[in-house]
Amino acid sequence: MLTNTLPRYEILDEFALQELERGWRRIVSELGIEFLYDEALDYLRGAGQDVDGQLVKFDPDWILEQVAKAPSQFTLQARNPERSVQVGGDTMVFSAVYGCPFVREGLERRDATYDDFQNLVKLAQSFPQLDSPGGTICEPNDRPLDSRHLDMVYALLTLSDKPFMGSVTSGPNAQDTIAMAEMVFGADSLDETPAIISLINVNSPLRYDDRMLAALVEYAKRGQATIVTPFLLMGAMSPVSVPATLAQQLAEGLAGIALVQTIRPGCPVVFGSFLSNTDMQSGSPSFGTPESAVGLLCTGQIARHYNLPFRGGGALTSSQVVDAQAGYESMMSLWPTFLAGTNFVMHSAGWLESALVSCYEKFVTDVECLRMMYEVFKPLEINEETLAYSAHQEVGQGGHFLGAVHTLERFRECFYRPLVSSTENYERWNRNGGNDTAARATEIWRKTLEEYEQPELDEGLREELKAFVDRRRTELGD
Amino acid sequence: MLTNTLPRYEILDEFALQELERGWRRIVSELGIEFLYDEALDYLRGAGQDVDGQLVKFDPDWILEQVAKAPSQFTLQARNPERSVQVGGDTMVFSAVYGCPFVREGLERRDATYDDFQNLVKLAQSFPQLDSPGGTICEPNDRPLDSRHLDMVYALLTLSDKPFMGSVTSGPNAQDTIAMAEMVFGADSLDETPAIISLINVNSPLRYDDRMLAALVEYAKRGQATIVTPFLLMGAMSPVSVPATLAQQLAEGLAGIALVQTIRPGCPVVFGSFLSNTDMQSGSPSFGTPESAVGLLCTGQIARHYNLPFRGGGALTSSQVVDAQAGYESMMSLWPTFLAGTNFVMHSAGWLESALVSCYEKFVTDVECLRMMYEVFKPLEINEETLAYSAHQEVGQGGHFLGAVHTLERFRECFYRPLVSSTENYERWNRNGGNDTAARATEIWRKTLEEYEQPELDEGLREELKAFVDRRRTELGD
Repeated sequence: MLTNTLPRYEILDEFALQELERGWRRIVSELGIEFLYDEALDYLRGAGQDVDGQLVKFDPDWILEQVAKAPSQFTLQARNPERSVQVGGDTMVFSAVYGCPFVREGLERRDATYDDFQNLVKLAQSFPQLDSPGGTICEPNDRPLDSRHLDMVYALLTLSDKPFMGSVTSGPNAQDTIAMAEMVFGADSLDETPAIISLINVNSPLRYDDRMLAALVEYAKRGQATIVTPFLLMGAMSPVSVPATLAQQLAEGLAGIALVQTIRPGCPVVFGSFLSNTDMQSGSPSFGTPESAVGLLCTGQIARHYNLPFRGGGALTSSQVVDAQAGYESMMSLWPTFLAGTNFVMHSAGWLESALVSCYEKFVTDVECLRMMYEVFKPLEINEETLAYSAHQEVGQGGHFLGAVHTLERFRECFYRPLVSSTENYERWNRNGGNDTAARATEIWRKTLEEYEQPELDEGLREELKAFVDRRRTELGD
Repeated sequence: MLTNTLPRYEILDEFALQELERGWRRIVSELGIEFLYDEALDYLRGAGQDVDGQLVKFDPDWILEQVAKAPSQFTLQARNPERSVQVGGDTMVFSAVYGCPFVREGLERRDATYDDFQNLVKLAQSFPQLDSPGGTICEPNDRPLDSRHLDMVYALLTLSDKPFMGSVTSGPNAQDTIAMAEMVFGADSLDETPAIISLINVNSPLRYDDRMLAALVEYAKRGQATIVTPFLLMGAMSPVSVPATLAQQLAEGLAGIALVQTIRPGCPVVFGSFLSNTDMQSGSPSFGTPESAVGLLCTGQIARHYNLPFRGGGALTSSQVVDAQAGYESMMSLWPTFLAGTNFVMHSAGWLESALVSCYEKFVTDVECLRMMYEVFKPLEINEETLAYSAHQEVGQGGHFLGAVHTLERFRECFYRPLVSSTENYERWNRNGGNDTAARATEIWRKTLEEYEQPELDEGLREELKAFVDRRRTELGD
């Protein structure tokens, strides 16, 4: 977890914020939002909103009253208390890629399996730059669809001791996640402090579907955190305009957060952003774009305006392989991620090919980028010691500092030390195989997996979790 | 030329600026700076500074008095007046890579030639994101050392009509550059408005060498712009500390700028920064690092504090090939370049392998990054039109915007359109050859060279320039 005390980079003026406010207010009040789940409709009807079939038209002031009940920051428990994190304020929490059906390992691209899932959780556990493995780090396609959420939660709780993300594929799956978390954290502790954070996507534009809503309701009832995220690829799910998309993101996001607060006032919830654009030539989604960078900078400012923790960013790219495009697009999204002070960052490592692929090598290059960004966002201390005048006195004119006392005392720790980047001169690099970054990354993730150590877990608890998984799998008919 | 009206990202507080002020003052006054050129020493002695042999100890207040005479912005003429640029204030001027002895073309790395020089100037002329080809875009190693500056200036003046950088390898070479510029711009116009901008590197620490000083003196006498640049790889040419290096950069840079103002008060001059670090494991220089990003952000703030236009940044990397590292390191330096509002950006395109290599493919991927950054730093307009409420009214809940009237009216221009990046789905990308970004870049620079059109030039002027080159080459014995 990074505490980012550097300034936020804000590009909206007061007038712009007012225009966006006007924008979301008329969307929720005049057009309304569909909620395809009766229990959610009951809550909103009960709170006095205008419900017609599945369409809800909101009083924007009521929305803001509800939103004001959400905490501006909260603790998310990890099963290892040292790895618990704060979500909101100046902190930034990083989790791995989420939701990819395929994996890439070197030159091979294939369906993701449960083995891959476990490997990627182990990598997320191993690198300290990641605060959480996230949830669906890849789809374990070799496990039955109805019960694979159990396998995923089991792996997340046993192979890692960092905070994790819960299943959102249905209400009962959310209940399973909560039941397993209760075994690990205890029901009381879970009620007091959330130990699950889950991604609730909006079926944009202006619609929440039944499965996501059912999961949202379950988690909210138990005080577990959700990340309510309008899913906005401009041109497809929103207009071809950043301001219009920001207004829509506010309309959808604030309405969902208001629902959470109606279910359980004070429940931790995160204002989510997943905002990029469609390539209008091909119709393909496009990631690591300038528009998404601008959208992210604005989103941070907007979330702070409404006093909400927010999610956004990551190391996004549309590239098919770990090449230059993968590098520059990932940085095109990571820089605004940090400049905006993003509180919860999904997709921080491993994302490739517009999130179709969880990539082992990309995991490593993304960790390198995170490590560099952590270094940039460390406050610079300027004082007599760092001014190092003694070194200037020692070296004087025309010499070099390699052997200066000041250098010798600090040379091991004075600069960022790369993980996979190379500064080798050409001859040496060539002699060592002339491997590009992706090839060097292969060596690093393999070694990291070899050196992985499973975090301690009580054997009785493990058996209890295992028994639950087995029982539920049988009940689900798999 | 970009006018960057977005906010500057500033990370130094008033106390930090005061500490840096204290830092450079004691360096120039107590330790002093060596100037290995008599004429420069004469100027400084004449201005009352304490000259002992080649060591000059300065009165810091005198330095600031001189620095105050430098314009905070100035016009740099191009031979096509439409391509003249403003240096300073809110504008950002981008020039290509500078100084590389090698080139890389696809998989081949070899000594750079004059053919390469011409090709790279043509590329810089062709891409509108570059405001200038720069100067030594690569070393034309197949041309004689003593007269190759003539070949370079000739190519810069004939193959491009954008502003160019002059030779700094000696006083006479600077005079040759001025003589050729006089033919193109006329002596009076040259005196009034600079048409040459030249890179004067400090032989850091705390020493200016004779060749660079001789060039500086020639250019200053004729009112041509120089970029006075401390050459600081922390650990080698400066202490292993960003603050100490910033103090040294100020000491060296302000002293050189004071010299320029002593020679010709009001002469345009740029506060230059070339600040990165040594890899302390290998001793190699390291580019695109977090430390250089922080240094650049601070440099911008410092230059504004002293009311000077400044140079810094670029698309820097230590990578040996156009791979993921080349991508993410270039962005690691381009983001702070823009956030700092850097007025003159050298090395904006083509830099590879710590500036040993000018790379054709990297040229293209860097232009892509520049294009994206231009887009990010375009002010966002939020108003009734961009809020696009009509599109929301048209699409409503659960639909898509691909066919909306608002979309159809704007789909060609609404988003950034990539140059070399691909959003193709995997199957299509594979069918099209499965080329990575570097391979696709090869196609683009070749096509760009094929489509290159030489800018108009009066035939008599061309012959005059050619005759000068031939005569001077003979005089120089080549």
